[in-house]
Amino acid sequence: MLAGRIAELVECLPGRCTVERFPDGEINVRLEEPVRGREVFLVQSTCPPVNDSLFELLCLADACRRSSALSVTAVVPYFGYARSDKRRSQRIPIAASMVAELMETVGIGHLVTVDLHAAQIEGFFHIPVDGLTAVPTLCRALATQLPAGVVVVSPDEGRFKAATEYGRLLGAPVAVLHKRREDGATTSVIKVVGEVQGHPCLLIDDMITTGGTLAGALEALLQAGARAEIYVAATHGLFVDGARAKLSHPAIRGIYVTDSVPATTSDWPGLSVVSLAPLLAVTIRRLCTGQSLPNLYERAIVGAESEPATRLKPKQ
Amino acid sequence: MLAGRIAELVECLPGRCTVERFPDGEINVRLEEPVRGREVFLVQSTCPPVNDSLFELLCLADACRRSSALSVTAVVPYFGYARSDKRRSQRIPIAASMVAELMETVGIGHLVTVDLHAAQIEGFFHIPVDGLTAVPTLCRALATQLPAGVVVVSPDEGRFKAATEYGRLLGAPVAVLHKRREDGATTSVIKVVGEVQGHPCLLIDDMITTGGTLAGALEALLQAGARAEIYVAATHGLFVDGARAKLSHPAIRGIYVTDSVPATTSDWPGLSVVSLAPLLAVTIRRLCTGQSLPNLYERAIVGAESEPATRLKPKQ
Amino acid sequence: MLAGRIAELVECLPGRCTVERFPDGEINVRLEEPVRGREVFLVQSTCPPVNDSLFELLCLADACRRSSALSVTAVVPYFGYARSDKRRSQRIPIAASMVAELMETVGIGHLVTVDLHAAQIEGFFHIPVDGLTAVPTLCRALATQLPAGVVVVSPDEGRFKAATEYGRLLGAPVAVLHKRREDGATTSVIKVVGEVQGHPCLLIDDMITTGGTLAGALEALLQAGARAEIYVAATHGLFVDGARAKLSHPAIRGIYVTDSVPATTSDWPGLSVVSLAPLLAVTIRRLCTGQSLPNLYERAIVGAESEPATRLKPKQ
Amino acid sequence: MLAGRIAELVECLPGRCTVERFPDGEINVRLEEPVRGREVFLVQSTCPPVNDSLFELLCLADACRRSSALSVTAVVPYFGYARSDKRRSQRIPIAASMVAELMETVGIGHLVTVDLHAAQIEGFFHIPVDGLTAVPTLCRALATQLPAGVVVVSPDEGRFKAATEYGRLLGAPVAVLHKRREDGATTSVIKVVGEVQGHPCLLIDDMITTGGTLAGALEALLQAGARAEIYVAATHGLFVDGARAKLSHPAIRGIYVTDSVPATTSDWPGLSVVSLAPLLAVTIRRLCTGQSLPNLYERAIVGAESEPATRLKPKQ
Amino acid sequence: MLAGRIAELVECLPGRCTVERFPDGEINVRLEEPVRGREVFLVQSTCPPVNDSLFELLCLADACRRSSALSVTAVVPYFGYARSDKRRSQRIPIAASMVAELMETVGIGHLVTVDLHAAQIEGFFHIPVDGLTAVPTLCRALATQLPAGVVVVSPDEGRFKAATEYGRLLGAPVAVLHKRREDGATTSVIKVVGEVQGHPCLLIDDMITTGGTLAGALEALLQAGARAEIYVAATHGLFVDGARAKLSHPAIRGIYVTDSVPATTSDWPGLSVVSLAPLLAVTIRRLCTGQSLPNLYERAIVGAESEPATRLKPKQ
Amino acid sequence: MLAGRIAELVECLPGRCTVERFPDGEINVRLEEPVRGREVFLVQSTCPPVNDSLFELLCLADACRRSSALSVTAVVPYFGYARSDKRRSQRIPIAASMVAELMETVGIGHLVTVDLHAAQIEGFFHIPVDGLTAVPTLCRALATQLPAGVVVVSPDEGRFKAATEYGRLLGAPVAVLHKRREDGATTSVIKVVGEVQGHPCLLIDDMITTGGTLAGALEALLQAGARAEIYVAATHGLFVDGARAKLSHPAIRGIYVTDSVPATTSDWPGLSVVSLAPLLAVTIRRLCTGQSLPNLYERAIVGAESEPATRLKPKQ
Repeated sequence: MLAGRIAELVECLPGRCTVERFPDGEINVRLEEPVRGREVFLVQSTCPPVNDSLFELLCLADACRRSSALSVTAVVPYFGYARSDKRRSQRIPIAASMVAELMETVGIGHLVTVDLHAAQIEGFFHIPVDGLTAVPTLCRALATQLPAGVVVVSPDEGRFKAATEYGRLLGAPVAVLHKRREDGATTSVIKVVGEVQGHPCLLIDDMITTGGTLAGALEALLQAGARAEIYVAATHGLFVDGARAKLSHPAIRGIYVTDSVPATTSDWPGLSVVSLAPLLAVTIRRLCTGQSLPNLYERAIVGAESEPATRLKPKQ
Repeated sequence: MLAGRIAELVECLPGRCTVERFPDGEINVRLEEPVRGREVFLVQSTCPPVNDSLFELLCLADACRRSSALSVTAVVPYFGYARSDKRRSQRIPIAASMVAELMETVGIGHLVTVDLHAAQIEGFFHIPVDGLTAVPTLCRALATQLPAGVVVVSPDEGRFKAATEYGRLLGAPVAVLHKRREDGATTSVIKVVGEVQGHPCLLIDDMITTGGTLAGALEALLQAGARAEIYVAATHGLFVDGARAKLSHPAIRGIYVTDSVPATTSDWPGLSVVSLAPLLAVTIRRLCTGQSLPNLYERAIVGAESEPATRLKPKQ
Repeated sequence: MLAGRIAELVECLPGRCTVERFPDGEINVRLEEPVRGREVFLVQSTCPPVNDSLFELLCLADACRRSSALSVTAVVPYFGYARSDKRRSQRIPIAASMVAELMETVGIGHLVTVDLHAAQIEGFFHIPVDGLTAVPTLCRALATQLPAGVVVVSPDEGRFKAATEYGRLLGAPVAVLHKRREDGATTSVIKVVGEVQGHPCLLIDDMITTGGTLAGALEALLQAGARAEIYVAATHGLFVDGARAKLSHPAIRGIYVTDSVPATTSDWPGLSVVSLAPLLAVTIRRLCTGQSLPNLYERAIVGAESEPATRLKPKQ
Repeated sequence: MLAGRIAELVECLPGRCTVERFPDGEINVRLEEPVRGREVFLVQSTCPPVNDSLFELLCLADACRRSSALSVTAVVPYFGYARSDKRRSQRIPIAASMVAELMETVGIGHLVTVDLHAAQIEGFFHIPVDGLTAVPTLCRALATQLPAGVVVVSPDEGRFKAATEYGRLLGAPVAVLHKRREDGATTSVIKVVGEVQGHPCLLIDDMITTGGTLAGALEALLQAGARAEIYVAATHGLFVDGARAKLSHPAIRGIYVTDSVPATTSDWPGLSVVSLAPLLAVTIRRLCTGQSLPNLYERAIVGAESEPATRLKPKQ
Repeated sequence: MLAGRIAELVECLPGRCTVERFPDGEINVRLEEPVRGREVFLVQSTCPPVNDSLFELLCLADACRRSSALSVTAVVPYFGYARSDKRRSQRIPIAASMVAELMETVGIGHLVTVDLHAAQIEGFFHIPVDGLTAVPTLCRALATQLPAGVVVVSPDEGRFKAATEYGRLLGAPVAVLHKRREDGATTSVIKVVGEVQGHPCLLIDDMITTGGTLAGALEALLQAGARAEIYVAATHGLFVDGARAKLSHPAIRGIYVTDSVPATTSDWPGLSVVSLAPLLAVTIRRLCTGQSLPNLYERAIVGAESEPATRLKPKQ
Repeated sequence: MLAGRIAELVECLPGRCTVERFPDGEINVRLEEPVRGREVFLVQSTCPPVNDSLFELLCLADACRRSSALSVTAVVPYFGYARSDKRRSQRIPIAASMVAELMETVGIGHLVTVDLHAAQIEGFFHIPVDGLTAVPTLCRALATQLPAGVVVVSPDEGRFKAATEYGRLLGAPVAVLHKRREDGATTSVIKVVGEVQGHPCLLIDDMITTGGTLAGALEALLQAGARAEIYVAATHGLFVDGARAKLSHPAIRGIYVTDSVPATTSDWPGLSVVSLAPLLAVTIRRLCTGQSLPNLYERAIVGAESEPATRLKPKQ
């Protein structure tokens, strides 16, 4: 479990707590050790089943404040409802904004999260938010695995900045896919901007849910002449609704995600799960000692403190 | 559906809205018609799956306030987490208090609910709460079905007041069960206070979850010499975790609940579901016209406005 | 004074402050020493004159926050307005909920209180509440005074749980009184559930105001054949409105209360006042050192740290 | 009673409510008629016993919001704790600011008050405050009673502006008393600025509590050669702590106050009580109809609507 | 002035208010007519001098709530600080989020704004936000002016969606510029995605500040072979810091902006200012009557109600 | 700069931060060093350009809370908008109250300020406010400069108390000017209360803006026979709108202000600027160490700790 690994790296015991369900499904949490006057870090991704995960987090926070915790920091590696960050049409909620409000309401005083879907979500909060990035962590794992000549590919404009970051850390060029409707056409065409012909590609995204976006991007890359040697990297691997099937294309040589979402799929040879524990452990350690987190934002390779640094360079 | 029946009685169309799930389980709600400047009544029990139900309600409320609804009233016939109304031990949340806080946070400005597990929950709110009772509604349905000589039985001290109310409306005496530990004994004994010997009984409770409490009460009644002709009435019928099996005792002649919780069990001959729609419809109509709700609190037989009154007397 | 005794046990000087009245009755408080950066414990029961006591507490808290106290903890051994915890009828306040809100508003960040009338009142707060119990403290005082064969009696269903606790600590059986209306009767009859015939009794309650409830219970016990040797124990002794006269029955051999409410009656031989100072002192000491308070909730005999432990067993 | 007189002038029945005390002094209020959807005006001065008055007001407001009142306006003719409007020394509360906060907390949405001790108190609120003045009302009563040649006297610098207003409405000159310490002197001397010699005086103030300030001012006026024919006018007459004795000087020919504070002294020939009912009635009527209150601020003679206007000129 | 034009279209008089400065620069506002019980619409862009504009708006809102306005809606055609919507580095504010918080704090209950820089800013608010778009308004003005064959060009990925909307309304194809760094290069190159060679272009953006972005885009278009006939359209024209000089390129044939920002430049032949008054007037009229604003979101051509509709088609 | 001098005296480095403007005038602040877990003191007078200064302060506070500062204390030597502390007429804001609210909203948890225009402004806040006075600091500078026989003069009633304080510290008598309208006169006359004839005077005020008040007071003093040797002292010297010209009267021999407002006028021989740095440094040092600030309120001569004490006596 992620929390356990973090605790190990922080060299403390994870706080014991019981999280159960009553027969009618109501959540029943109990902190099994005192939190009075202590800084509590609640490690809980709000991943599927998202409403249960979220409510567990809120209940734990409520228990902490009522038990006189000095502070409650939510460590939410995967922040659910992040895509509900604006109103695409009238008369819908902005769920990410509401979730932010709920978290603050129950006394969460600090949020640590990883690769938020939109950076603006920080502004939904008035408490401090440390928005970390898993890109260096993923790149460290990828560096020795990727073939020479690899091109980093963003599946749309929204991830272009992240792709640039992958490119910078891996020393690789970047391409971006563009979905456009030609005049009068009812279906959109994906255009590839950047050189991919004959190159192996690293297709990146912030999260994989059904795998649909990536499957479409894969098609476009192959049509554009990319070598049939595609790697996929994403921070959050939810893999719902037949994602594995969609991503079982022979051109896909490896999929890299972090453990921000507990693996629901075991026994999937192509899938590599890279742990966020070192990143989160160093973050928590610094929060506890009041140190700043500059290099996290500078997107340097953190974790170097707790494990041997990996050279970052494309495989020869 | 309860909301539909209420709308029919209020003689308005139910507001259309879409409540769906994204593939990863996130709730996707959309109000399908304008709410700008309108008083919105969200009819939603927070019953199992409780966290999903609750989060749906919060999302709907968020959509309403962002869409300039004049007011948002949550009509929550069954209020989940109501039994988490105090701290039975250290370091646990008070979930009902937290839920109250969450509801107020997202802009719910008024709560209508039915037979709250503890009356103090009203005090968790600072918005107006109309805590209705389904007892008259149930009694109207029971009145023509119960045998002569029936005794109303409360399964413990906590429901004694409700039992008295049933007794008053049905013109029947009341007994109460007492669970006590005799000196040195490790198991508790249920004592019956009141005359039940040779009488048919109406065993009442506010809610039925697993049916365990009622099954125990049934045993005690039979041991105390009650006639093997027991009726059960409760406002909220959740029937989880094998409740139906526990309540399939031959002495049980009928179980009466309301539709505060959508029926998960069809094809159960012994179960009668009495609709709260008339009670809620008259309440909403009065809220809209600014009328007071005195007789709801006086526990008179409401609903008489919308359907022919039923004589309340024990069956001859 | 309770605060003084607590300070003595905590081995610190009580903070000096002036609490006076202007000629028109307005409260005039002044902290006579700095509180800047300090954890302040305001010891003040909100007992009669309740509004003055409450307003004094609020004024003191306001003075503390404006003077940069690090934290303000209200130690309120007797929490006034606790019986106004729900709406028994329409159009009344829920004063206990409102008082909770007022306390939080003026910056009280933590509440310590004793034997709250209803446990749900904790849920009226969102700040930490440590709801202590005086039952072990009272039992320690009672243990050597009670005759053999004593039965603990709860005057109604609401105090049954507390009575069970007394019984557990004193090794005594428990009985409970039941007030019921027989069919058609206009006056209620008190039924005794449990064996009291020929036994001396310990009649318990959480608070004594006018003494009316206890006087009625006494009558019922004697009619039920209890021995005319009745002891009374309650956490809070307000003794208003002729309570002393009502409780001057020859069968009453002793009344035990704590000093949660300053004694308004001196020279009453039958009255024993047990101090809460040890309980509150150990609580405050632990709060200051960030220790948990587990055994307070476990209802063990606290105070053992500060004074020789008393054996808890019925007098031989 | 003031509320009754106001209701009469507004031509509506005063809302019925019960305000009682439990035997232990706790306030027990109940609105005896529905407030659902109605604009409620709570008329309650926070005069002695100030904490009880204040808490009654808060309880009534809590009852109103819980009963779905559309709005709650507190009409507080005399606003207690107004002199606690700043910190004269360290480590004291600012009670007026705290009271403002408490009122807003319990849902009071609008305040109407009269001659606030300091105009800045409006800024303690974020809700609308209508700070009325009783000076025109008092002047109308005074106009026909004052002798020719009267001089309006302010007892200190703080009331100079109010004195100027009296002077303007009565067509009279103004003088002001100045309390100063001469070099080295330990007692202060009152200097009279303005012509009073041989003139009758109208000594004004916003409130009379113990009468001490006015008694001192009287002495100074007589020493300065004022004619021994002094009238006193103040909006709020609390008359505590021997005020009547202090003000029974033969030179005092009449004392005029309003009914902002219920008269505690009957049978005092020199005291004239002028009712604020017309002023408050016209204010409430305008608030209900959404009219502005400009001439109240303009300090014109309001009330003209509800009773024949009185010519304002010094008696010939 | 925009507010005046809106008032005219809404067929009401604009509310009179005075907005002045004290000699030290402090803002001095006064509402010159009553707002008691009225719905107030404050029309104020928070454009340069941005802090003064913003503070004026806050002062006006404070005056409104203290004067018992029924509701306060801020109509902010240009929302300043919108680009400060996330933290690009550590230790900076999120000014747009803070501004949202300030607006809510002073009692603004509804926001109407136009073409927010990022849609997520709506989520910084919990009050209703109506985020309108000026694109149809601009297109109506452009439709008759643009040459045949025009291509809509987005200057970067962020405006691609808006460009698509322009394209849809004008029946024109869309291209997008891509700023990328080639491997090892220190300066970025702009790539054009889409067909522009030989075509006249409509370069769009949400706002023009210094004109630097557009000047760069112009260069890229010309290098890519676009015809030297470029039109520019943007909702907000701030034109600061030498923007006019930068945009005085001979290839630029016309610049279209709205009056969301009061024109600081007169006598600029190439500049066309299209008024938002019809769009805002119809919005306000609908808000007042409680109508929904569906077609505003649907991005239809609003304003048709108040002025003759303009045919939308590319010039032949 | 004041902040620099304070930091020097506190013996720490001033925190580095960048405060810039974007081309459109939006404020761009960045804390250049970590504040995580640190107590931050933001030294910023809200002096002209007042809205920019205020918004800078708010932005800095927002940056601090989002960067996990332990606490944010605003040190605001000159508190702008302080004269907008009440409603002088209807339908205006109370800007000082609103500013207080804004400061609290963005997470400022403590305010240190100097010679607030009205002491009630403290009550606009619910956070701790340390309202210091510069009078002892100014008196120390004045003591050796003033001629014998000097009289302290308050320009109106509102500053009388401050004048008394100057008088006490300088051992000088006090006079006060009174602005009054004689009967029927349209212009007011200033009367001098106290002995000034033949005396040099020290004319004091809390702030100098346009100099108009002081110029009028000067005239009145000279007319009343004061010696043409007038000194002026004020805490805050804004000197706007031709103040220097107004104060260039030959009778004025020296003007003393503090550096609460950065000097906008250099090369003005008659102007002496006394630094508040010692006062603020000792205050901050005590706040950091949790010491009380009693003698600041006692208005003793602080700063003695950090620089040689100056004898306080009129020059012989």
